Amino acid sequence: MAKELKELTSRSANYAQWYQDLVIKADLAENSAVRGCMVIKPYGYAIWEKMQRILDNMFKETGHQNAYFPLLIPKSFLSREAAHVEGFAKECAVVTHYRLKNDPKGKGVVVDPAAKLEEELIIRPTSETIIWHTYRNWIQSYRDLPILVNQWANVMRWEMRTRLFLRTAEFLWQEGHTAHATREEAEAETLTIHNLYADFAENYMALPVIKGVKTESERFAGALETYSIESMMQDGKALQAGTSHFLGQNFGKAFDVTFVDKNGNTDYAWATSWGVSTRLVGALIMAHSDDNGLVLPPLLSPTQVVIVPIYRSEEQLAQISEKVAGIMQKLKDLGITVKYDDTDNRKPGWKFAEYELKGIPVRLAMGGRDLENNTIEVMRRDKLEKENRSCEGIEKYVKNLLEDIQQNIYQKALDNRKNRTITVKTYDDFKEKIEEGYFIMAHWDGTSETENRVKADTKATIRCIPLDGDKTPGKCMVTGRPSGQRVLFARAY
Amino acid sequence: MAKELKELTSRSANYAQWYQDLVIKADLAENSAVRGCMVIKPYGYAIWEKMQRILDNMFKETGHQNAYFPLLIPKSFLSREAAHVEGFAKECAVVTHYRLKNDPKGKGVVVDPAAKLEEELIIRPTSETIIWHTYRNWIQSYRDLPILVNQWANVMRWEMRTRLFLRTAEFLWQEGHTAHATREEAEAETLTIHNLYADFAENYMALPVIKGVKTESERFAGALETYSIESMMQDGKALQAGTSHFLGQNFGKAFDVTFVDKNGNTDYAWATSWGVSTRLVGALIMAHSDDNGLVLPPLLSPTQVVIVPIYRSEEQLAQISEKVAGIMQKLKDLGITVKYDDTDNRKPGWKFAEYELKGIPVRLAMGGRDLENNTIEVMRRDKLEKENRSCEGIEKYVKNLLEDIQQNIYQKALDNRKNRTITVKTYDDFKEKIEEGYFIMAHWDGTSETENRVKADTKATIRCIPLDGDKTPGKCMVTGRPSGQRVLFARAY
Repeated sequence: MAKELKELTSRSANYAQWYQDLVIKADLAENSAVRGCMVIKPYGYAIWEKMQRILDNMFKETGHQNAYFPLLIPKSFLSREAAHVEGFAKECAVVTHYRLKNDPKGKGVVVDPAAKLEEELIIRPTSETIIWHTYRNWIQSYRDLPILVNQWANVMRWEMRTRLFLRTAEFLWQEGHTAHATREEAEAETLTIHNLYADFAENYMALPVIKGVKTESERFAGALETYSIESMMQDGKALQAGTSHFLGQNFGKAFDVTFVDKNGNTDYAWATSWGVSTRLVGALIMAHSDDNGLVLPPLLSPTQVVIVPIYRSEEQLAQISEKVAGIMQKLKDLGITVKYDDTDNRKPGWKFAEYELKGIPVRLAMGGRDLENNTIEVMRRDKLEKENRSCEGIEKYVKNLLEDIQQNIYQKALDNRKNRTITVKTYDDFKEKIEEGYFIMAHWDGTSETENRVKADTKATIRCIPLDGDKTPGKCMVTGRPSGQRVLFARAY
Repeated sequence: MAKELKELTSRSANYAQWYQDLVIKADLAENSAVRGCMVIKPYGYAIWEKMQRILDNMFKETGHQNAYFPLLIPKSFLSREAAHVEGFAKECAVVTHYRLKNDPKGKGVVVDPAAKLEEELIIRPTSETIIWHTYRNWIQSYRDLPILVNQWANVMRWEMRTRLFLRTAEFLWQEGHTAHATREEAEAETLTIHNLYADFAENYMALPVIKGVKTESERFAGALETYSIESMMQDGKALQAGTSHFLGQNFGKAFDVTFVDKNGNTDYAWATSWGVSTRLVGALIMAHSDDNGLVLPPLLSPTQVVIVPIYRSEEQLAQISEKVAGIMQKLKDLGITVKYDDTDNRKPGWKFAEYELKGIPVRLAMGGRDLENNTIEVMRRDKLEKENRSCEGIEKYVKNLLEDIQQNIYQKALDNRKNRTITVKTYDDFKEKIEEGYFIMAHWDGTSETENRVKADTKATIRCIPLDGDKTPGKCMVTGRPSGQRVLFARAY
C-alpha cells in the first residue's frame, strides 16, 4: 500500500485534523462506501486483536464464557423495556425485506416487494433484548445462576456524525450479559468488570482513568447504575473508555425471566451488562501519539522492536544480517515481538520515518561501524531519544526499555491529566476554563435541570461522580444548593 | 442450565433427529427468536473458538493478516459482477430504513417512513464486492501486491430450510480475500489455502477429506475454479468442509482494480477468496459422535480430561482431592486441559453420563479403593473402554491416550468412508446404491446436462473432481460418452 510520507497536521494547529490524518497515514482505518461504516485496515485490526486477546483472557479468568446471539432483533423486542426503547430504538438499521429480484425495467436488482417481512428486524444496537429473551429458557432455578456470558460482535447505531474508531455506525465490541440470583451478586459483578476495565486501561493501554458512576441522565438506557472509566485525551477532552451497567430486574421483568430460589420462592433474575469497543483504538491513538505519528504502549504494539540494517554492499548486509539474527533470537526468547526490515527498495531514513509513524516502541539500527565496534543504535519512540549500546546483553536492555516506555507513556498521560484537572468556585470561572480544555471538579446540586443547563451553556457534561478522592460537601457552582461531593465535568468525545 | 439427561434418538432410528437432539442436549446451540438464526451456546462456541485459534495461526504462518470490512453492502455493488449477482443477490436481508419512531396509534415503535435510504443496503452474504471496491484504492503498483487479507465475520443468507450449524441464515466464518499481480501467484494461493484446509480437517478435526475441484455448475458465483474438501458423514452423505476460489480477474474488472507491473504495463489484479464457517462444528458433530453423545477429537475439545471423585465422606473427598491435585498439576504441565468436578449436587453416575454426552475425550475417576491402591480409573470416550491404572506416570499415559484417541477417531472416519465408497458401472447400479448412502466414483461426460439429470433423478450431485487417485478414462455411466476420470457423486448436506 504505497503512499508518500507526508507531514501530519500538528496537534497544536488542529487536533481533530491531526487525529484524522494519523489514522489514515498510519494505515489504521479508512471510511468505506457505506456512510458511517469504516474499514479497519490490517495494522489497526492488529492493535484491536491485541486488545481482544488480553481482555478475553481477563474475562475468562473471572469466570466468563463466550457465546453468540443473533445479529437481528425483532422490532417488538425493543419496546419491551421502557427506558431501553427510548435510548436505542430510534437511530438503527431496519431490515424490511429478504429478497432482491432482477429489475424488470432494466439492469441491476431491485427489492422484491413480495418478500416483505411480517415484522421488521433491527440490526442490534446492543443485545440486552435478544439475550434476555433467550435467557428466559435457560433459567428456571437458582442452580442455573449465575450466567456469566460475553459476546464479541459487531453492532450498529445510525450515527449522524462519525469519526474513525471514535464514533462509527458499525463498530466491533464485546458485550457481557450476566444473570444473577441476588441483587448483591449482580452489583458485585458490575464492580468486578468496572475494575477489570480500569486495570486494562491503566496497565495495558497506559491510560490513566477516573472511576465513577454516571448521573441519571447519562446512564445506559435501562440501567439502575452505570459505572464508567473516564480518560483524558491530549486536548483535555474526556473519552469514556468502558461502561459496566447494573440493570436491576428491569430486563428480568421485561422478558419474564424468573427463577425459583433456595427457599422455593420465585423472583426475577438480576442483570448486568458491560462493554468496550473499537473506540478504545481511537482512545489509544489520541492519548499518546505525537506530531511524528503513533506512540503505542509496548504491551499493545503488534511489533515491539524493529531492526533496520544500514549497509553499503551486499557483503556488508550479509554480515549485519548474521549479527542481527543472533540478537533477534535472544529478543524472541524473551517474548519480544521483533521485525527485521532488510527490504532494499527503501532507504533507512524512509524506514525510520515509517516506523516512527507506526509507533513501533523501539527501533534498532546497525551499520558498518556498529559491526566493527559490536554496538547497535537504540531509539525509543516515546521520547525519540537515540543512544549507542554494546550488543552484549542488548536483549535485556531492550526488555527493560520496553517496560520503561510502557511506564513512561502512562506517567506522561497522568501528568497531562493532573496538569489539566482543576477545581472552580464560580460558574463564571467554570465557563472560562472549560473553553481551554480542562477536567473540572465542581460542586453540583444533583439535579438534571442544572446538568442540562451546564450542557446547554458550555457543551460540558458530567463525566462521572468519582468513586475515589475528595468527598467534601459544598455548594453547587450554578445554583448554590447543597452538593455531596465534587463531580467531574468535561467536554467529551 | 439444568436439564434431564434423556436418551438421544439413536443414529439408526433417525440420523437427522439424532443430530438435532445432540446439538440441543449437549448445549451446543439452539434456535433463536429470529427465523433461521441460531444462538451458539457457550459449549458450542468454545469448540468454534478452538477452531478459530488454530486456523488463525495457520493463516498468519502463511503470511495473512486480519482486517475488517463493513457489514452492509450497497445494493448496486452486487450487480457489478454478472455471475456473482445471480448467486448471491437474491435471498438476502435488505436494510431499507434507518430510523424507528413511536407508533402514533399506540404503544411500541414503527418504521419512520421519512427515514428511507436512497439506496438499499444488503447484509453481506459474502464480501467480495465491498472488499474489491476497497482494494481499488489500495492497489496502484505491483509493489502494493500481494494483499493477503482475512476477515472473521458474520454473514447472512436468507435460507428457507435451516439446521443448526449446518445451514443457518446468519453464520460465523472467516473469508480470505487476496489480490495478486499474476495469474500463477493467485492460483498458487488458491491451492495453498486448499491444502491448509485439508490439513486442518484431517489433523485437527480428525476428518478425512477428498480434495478436488467443483464442476462449473457447483462453482462459487464469480469463480473460474473452486477447490473443495469433501468429507463423509456417518450416514454416507457428503459435507463440503471448506472452499478456496480462484476468481481470475473477474472482480478486478468489475471494480476496476488495476496496477502497473514491473514493466510499466497496466493490468487488472488477480483474485482469490476462501472460507470456512461454523458449519464445521456441525461436521465435527456428525462425523464422530455416537448414540451416547458427542465424540470430540482431543485437539478441539475445550476440556480434554475430566476427573470425578467417588467418595463416602467429606474426609474421604478431602483425601481424594489432595491426590487429584497432584495429578492435575502434572497433566497441566504437559499442556492438557483438565477439569475436576467435585460438585456435590450430582451423583458420579450422572456426571459420567453428562461428560459422555459432552464428548470429553478422557474421564478419570478415583474412589476409596483407588486411594488405597494408588490407582485411578481411566475411561476413553471414543471406545467407551475403562481400565484401572497406577497413578504412577498416569500423566504420560493420558497424554499418549489423547494422541491415540485423536488418531483412532480419524481412522474410524476413514474406514467408514472407505467402506462406503464404491464404483459403479451402470446408471441403474448408481441409482440403487445412492439410496443406501454411498460415495460413488463414477464416470461422467463432463456436461451440465448429465449432471442435472443425475441430480433430478437421484438428488446426488458431483461433489468434486478429485485431484488425487485413479485417473483412468472411461465412459459416462449415463450417456456412454467419453470421460476423463471418475468423479465423486454423493448426496450432500
